Amino acid sequence: MKRLERIRGLSRRLPSGTILWDSRTLEAHSGDKWFAKALPEAVAFPRTPEAVAAILAFASKHRIPVTARGSGYGYVGGCVPSKGGIALSLAHMNRILGIDPHDFAAVVQPGVITAEFQEQVERKGLYYPPDPASRKDCSLGGNIATNAGGPRCLKYGVTRDYVLGVQVALPNGSLVRLGARTHKNKTGFDLHRLFVGSEGMLGVVTEATLKLLPKPPYRACLGVGFADMAGAARAIRAIFAAGFLPSALELADEFTLRAAVKRTGSRLLQGCGAHMIIELDGHETSVRGELTTLTALLRRFRPLLVQRGLGEAGCERFWGLRREFSYSLRDTGLTKLNEDVVVPRGRLEDLFRLTRRLQRRHRLPLACFGHAGDGNIHVNVMLNEADAAERARSESCLDELFQGVLAMGGVITGEHGIGLAKRRWWPDAASPEVRALHLTIKRALDPSDILNPGKFLTR
Amino acid sequence: MKRLERIRGLSRRLPSGTILWDSRTLEAHSGDKWFAKALPEAVAFPRTPEAVAAILAFASKHRIPVTARGSGYGYVGGCVPSKGGIALSLAHMNRILGIDPHDFAAVVQPGVITAEFQEQVERKGLYYPPDPASRKDCSLGGNIATNAGGPRCLKYGVTRDYVLGVQVALPNGSLVRLGARTHKNKTGFDLHRLFVGSEGMLGVVTEATLKLLPKPPYRACLGVGFADMAGAARAIRAIFAAGFLPSALELADEFTLRAAVKRTGSRLLQGCGAHMIIELDGHETSVRGELTTLTALLRRFRPLLVQRGLGEAGCERFWGLRREFSYSLRDTGLTKLNEDVVVPRGRLEDLFRLTRRLQRRHRLPLACFGHAGDGNIHVNVMLNEADAAERARSESCLDELFQGVLAMGGVITGEHGIGLAKRRWWPDAASPEVRALHLTIKRALDPSDILNPGKFLTR
Repeated sequence: MKRLERIRGLSRRLPSGTILWDSRTLEAHSGDKWFAKALPEAVAFPRTPEAVAAILAFASKHRIPVTARGSGYGYVGGCVPSKGGIALSLAHMNRILGIDPHDFAAVVQPGVITAEFQEQVERKGLYYPPDPASRKDCSLGGNIATNAGGPRCLKYGVTRDYVLGVQVALPNGSLVRLGARTHKNKTGFDLHRLFVGSEGMLGVVTEATLKLLPKPPYRACLGVGFADMAGAARAIRAIFAAGFLPSALELADEFTLRAAVKRTGSRLLQGCGAHMIIELDGHETSVRGELTTLTALLRRFRPLLVQRGLGEAGCERFWGLRREFSYSLRDTGLTKLNEDVVVPRGRLEDLFRLTRRLQRRHRLPLACFGHAGDGNIHVNVMLNEADAAERARSESCLDELFQGVLAMGGVITGEHGIGLAKRRWWPDAASPEVRALHLTIKRALDPSDILNPGKFLTR
Repeated sequence: MKRLERIRGLSRRLPSGTILWDSRTLEAHSGDKWFAKALPEAVAFPRTPEAVAAILAFASKHRIPVTARGSGYGYVGGCVPSKGGIALSLAHMNRILGIDPHDFAAVVQPGVITAEFQEQVERKGLYYPPDPASRKDCSLGGNIATNAGGPRCLKYGVTRDYVLGVQVALPNGSLVRLGARTHKNKTGFDLHRLFVGSEGMLGVVTEATLKLLPKPPYRACLGVGFADMAGAARAIRAIFAAGFLPSALELADEFTLRAAVKRTGSRLLQGCGAHMIIELDGHETSVRGELTTLTALLRRFRPLLVQRGLGEAGCERFWGLRREFSYSLRDTGLTKLNEDVVVPRGRLEDLFRLTRRLQRRHRLPLACFGHAGDGNIHVNVMLNEADAAERARSESCLDELFQGVLAMGGVITGEHGIGLAKRRWWPDAASPEVRALHLTIKRALDPSDILNPGKFLTR
């Protein structure tokens, strides 16, 4: 029997409307924010964990690929249904099941949009720190699948650090509740976190219990301009050496800044070769005092400008600009290959030396900005895609970027994952032993290889 | 061939002195701080990762149990070699391989003593927060195997949150480097953290790369006495609601306090039905200001006393006392069954209601103290072990304690692990699906079932 016929058989056993295969729906579920697309044979919109489990059990039995997806805002093609089969959308499982201000815990379905969740949480005086740039569009389930980060991760950690428990549907069709509602737990292995960041290859999260913090009562920012990236990198070292762990520490280079000035007309960034946003949060008096200390410290590094943003609105001035960086680079008319590399924190200056060298060598602009405090810099290789020579040079440039980053003890992805986009460099980034261990775990949980096939664990 | 003969054969292939089987050595490696003991047939003291891997390959081939151990300071019999075989001590792999103040990362061997590491780290202006009570004696490898916590975990997280990478020897004899030196990493699955907290059942960590923070420049404490635990629990709620996330928030009940006063003669605790230690850290001016705000907030809950401890020495006054709690309880002459249960943060008052009820019902004192901010309370059932009736009542009391905690959405262990001590309640704490998933992972990584057999995953 053909796959689609089988899937139609499954469809009849699920509530009507759960499985669709009209061409518009297939098209809309063929990819994410990366360029690659592949049509699924059907799209499933389960509304219950049990329906998800039934779909997986069926797919395992008939060896039909299932590629789960949240909102489709990933950057590496992670939810492209490369081998066809079923695109499993969690978009209709989008209820917040509870936010508890005493337990500091929330229970959510995977399709909840991250920013909407954060708003609800903050309305209760609580805080869910992970803040990927796409938080207005992305879903918590997608965040869990990719272990999403964002600027605040410097102080607060990534999505994984907020996942206390999950309900997960396994390829064998069982539904398992892992973890708990407590902030601490040493019952057995830490299995629920194995699914965090597993890019839809081990199971499908159907519910999550998330840890919440008390909302910091106040925050404030400094925007600091430097003549060059080396000066900024030296200042970053001094910030940590003085015992500061800012809630965010972002950095942008000259190319990015020029594009942003052009787009926004902002005078906050003008004339800088590097620009830093440093955010502090906590109790108001403390934050204001620390901001003064920090300003004095930064003056030693001869910044071109130091601007303050106080409170929510004051900070938003800077973050509003920061969010424009990606769009500003697109405004250049060039294609940007956004690579979220990470180096050990002490190697930032080496990373910028590397990108300058690659820029000269391959005659392509490299726009760098990102979470400098984490050593996690978005290196954007900018190219005219219509130009075959530039395309070829960009490929070599990426090869050398990743080799250089790995040689520094860095990693090729800090937030986006491997997906399809970085599949080519997976063998460079993971030793044969590491790849073997991934396959051991994959085979144990997904023996029929139905979950998100065609990605970095292709057998 | 008999096991011991085989082991002697292995011994000849390893550097001399690696494997010992004299009775004193066997005896010294038969257990931890829990009461259960079992003699191994031999004790291995490898000095290199390669030796560890060779021992595991050999043991897998001949199906000989291997029970890894750090310093033997666990509380649940986790490293008791229940099925004999080889006790694998990591005590001789105890070098700090590097502490990098720029990368905010350290590389250590598993046998390094936690407190010694912390001293070295702090000498460089850096900070490694996890602080189990036994940190002067326990090892980082043991901390990783049990995902150790401690008071500071409230603000800073547990051991897992500081493990950036590991080198691990697998049962098949391969040595794998997982994770990296970066603070962020999304390369593949989060496999290195699967080994954190796995209680020696999946692999043996032979090296770890740990994340470090900038050392907070200042800290200060409040010691706050209340008439009863309910008052203290209400105050805790108010602390979080005001946006405080203290670096520690410890609580002790009347029984514990009376024993501590008797042992130490301290007037800091006298006459209280409940006592809290709240620690704040950060920049000095901020901490001092916040301490004043916090004091005002606590006054609303009519504390019997509020005392301040400023700076390292001031804080140490309180922590010195806190560390005596366990010994004070032992001074009573009673045996204490220390159960590190956790409830969702909002259920603290319910937990104390439960322990009061159990105390009356089973006519046994229950001394409660611990990490109240995390909902992680050490409930100590105190009994005269010579009395058979008390022993029987203590067993029923534990059963009801764990059932009650689980019914509140809590867990039976927050820090110590399951080991042997909590094996009996593992089926209550983990559903059949959860247990099945544990076995799936265990079988995939350790098909010959050599690693720490006889514990909660006994087949």
